[in-house]
Amino acid sequence: MAGGAHESDFIARMRQLATSPQSRNLADDAALLNIGGARLVLTTDTLVEGVHYRADDPPADIGWKLAAVNLSDLAGKGAQPAGCLLNYALSGDARWDAEFARGLGEALERHAMPLLGGDTVTMPSGAPRALSLTAIGSAGGETPARCGVRPGDTLYVTRPVGDAGAGLRLLEQGQDAPASLVAAYRRPTPCLNEGMALAPLVHAMMDISDGLLIDAQRMAQASGLAIRIDHIPLSADLVALEGDSLETRLRAASAGDDYELLLALPADATPPAGLALIRVGTAFAGTGLSLRLEGTDIPLPDRLGYEHGAPSGHAARKAT
Amino acid sequence: MAGGAHESDFIARMRQLATSPQSRNLADDAALLNIGGARLVLTTDTLVEGVHYRADDPPADIGWKLAAVNLSDLAGKGAQPAGCLLNYALSGDARWDAEFARGLGEALERHAMPLLGGDTVTMPSGAPRALSLTAIGSAGGETPARCGVRPGDTLYVTRPVGDAGAGLRLLEQGQDAPASLVAAYRRPTPCLNEGMALAPLVHAMMDISDGLLIDAQRMAQASGLAIRIDHIPLSADLVALEGDSLETRLRAASAGDDYELLLALPADATPPAGLALIRVGTAFAGTGLSLRLEGTDIPLPDRLGYEHGAPSGHAARKAT
Repeated sequence: MAGGAHESDFIARMRQLATSPQSRNLADDAALLNIGGARLVLTTDTLVEGVHYRADDPPADIGWKLAAVNLSDLAGKGAQPAGCLLNYALSGDARWDAEFARGLGEALERHAMPLLGGDTVTMPSGAPRALSLTAIGSAGGETPARCGVRPGDTLYVTRPVGDAGAGLRLLEQGQDAPASLVAAYRRPTPCLNEGMALAPLVHAMMDISDGLLIDAQRMAQASGLAIRIDHIPLSADLVALEGDSLETRLRAASAGDDYELLLALPADATPPAGLALIRVGTAFAGTGLSLRLEGTDIPLPDRLGYEHGAPSGHAARKAT
Repeated sequence: MAGGAHESDFIARMRQLATSPQSRNLADDAALLNIGGARLVLTTDTLVEGVHYRADDPPADIGWKLAAVNLSDLAGKGAQPAGCLLNYALSGDARWDAEFARGLGEALERHAMPLLGGDTVTMPSGAPRALSLTAIGSAGGETPARCGVRPGDTLYVTRPVGDAGAGLRLLEQGQDAPASLVAAYRRPTPCLNEGMALAPLVHAMMDISDGLLIDAQRMAQASGLAIRIDHIPLSADLVALEGDSLETRLRAASAGDDYELLLALPADATPPAGLALIRVGTAFAGTGLSLRLEGTDIPLPDRLGYEHGAPSGHAARKAT
């Protein structure tokens, strides 16, 4: 059985256990829990050695990234970090564990997320590491979801895309990579402030950790309308490295590992001035995703981004 | 480096990240989070194949147990289950995964704990399974801890101990085991109702998942006083199987995998009538744990119970 179908089966079974409407049928990036007057956002992500990160990635960066991927899910909901729990599998290498703890601590401190508890286990010898973090956030008045885009909305992202994917690719090829691209892959910055500022304004919001194209497609599907992407913003460093070709833009929009936000605002809304949002497309009645760059319709690439459980040639995979 | 020292080092590092007083310095079985008027109890446990359960344990029972061990930590705090998140590593065996989901679902439904979300990953081929659950509970007016016992308090447990340990031992020896002992090991029942009823009355409370003796020792240490255990209650089924020897009682009190509650009540308190608590000892000024059975002082066994990260001959280990 293919990994994808097997995983879909399992998630379908899990949906049957998600008996609370607050679980959003497990279809969103985070769960909501209204309890005792509090409105919580809950999310959890696991990083597996050889699957979600390269075995030779610096352990401090893996610690950072485990925090960042969970914080990015809170950011998509406009939530403020409240605390987290760690499930840690001791590696048998005390230095590795210490470095992991250092990087995790840097990310938690930077984003004011205290560690509240956890469980530490020892894996059988030779087993790959599997590391999970569960993050709890405090929701504001609005908790945006993937769904909710309306026809005529304008779509924005918080920053250019593709830096992390390019950084990973260069690392895999053993090439020197510009520091900004390596940092984008190893030390992503979750858009927490942006998420909190935008949550009251947007019709829909999510992080694009799987890639701009696939996540825009998911937003279109969840909202029951069509989205056309008409701009794929690249960083100056990426353009300096790869030039500004269609190939570069398509790769940047489908590589994944960008922890930016994709959001929909009403066409007549003025984006908050301080955030420097970048317009990437529009929504309209219909279905599906389309791509038109500089006035020309572009066929969608075969691979739109990272899909859970799908086989892939990448050595490093991201967590959702 | 020994597993135990290595794990202690790592946990010491984690304590430095536990900057919130609500984490209780990671010294308790669960964390508290006061947020937006809600009082939450948070706990997480990981079960690792070959470490916390036997590879040939029925997958439905492993699903049940993953829920039960987390629910037991909520019970120790007198919390009501509010929801949980699952970190699941697909096994490559769709039938195994489906059976796991069935058992997990049975436990969640029985204890009214909805699944709110989670993350499903695919492990590299041949890797042992690692399964984590994070449980969120709603605390009542009081959230007992390990500490808080006062001199003169009487100690109670909710049910006899040792059934699960005996069930595991018989399974490992390939012997027929009475159904009640196997069920105690594979399908433990968390004491949620007992925990909620007792939380307002007790000076201290915890689950004894690591074994009565070691957990009583921890309670004494956290409370800064001495505890003497003067009764080790056994089930009729265990006595029928093994007889009522000192060896049986010591083994029962140190085997672990009992998901019962240990609690301290003032000496003049009347235990709630409906709960059938069993008196097991007393607390007094001093330090440490001692054992006196039928009026005779008994030396403590070398191994008091399960210790995190300690080497052990057991094939199956419990989660804290």
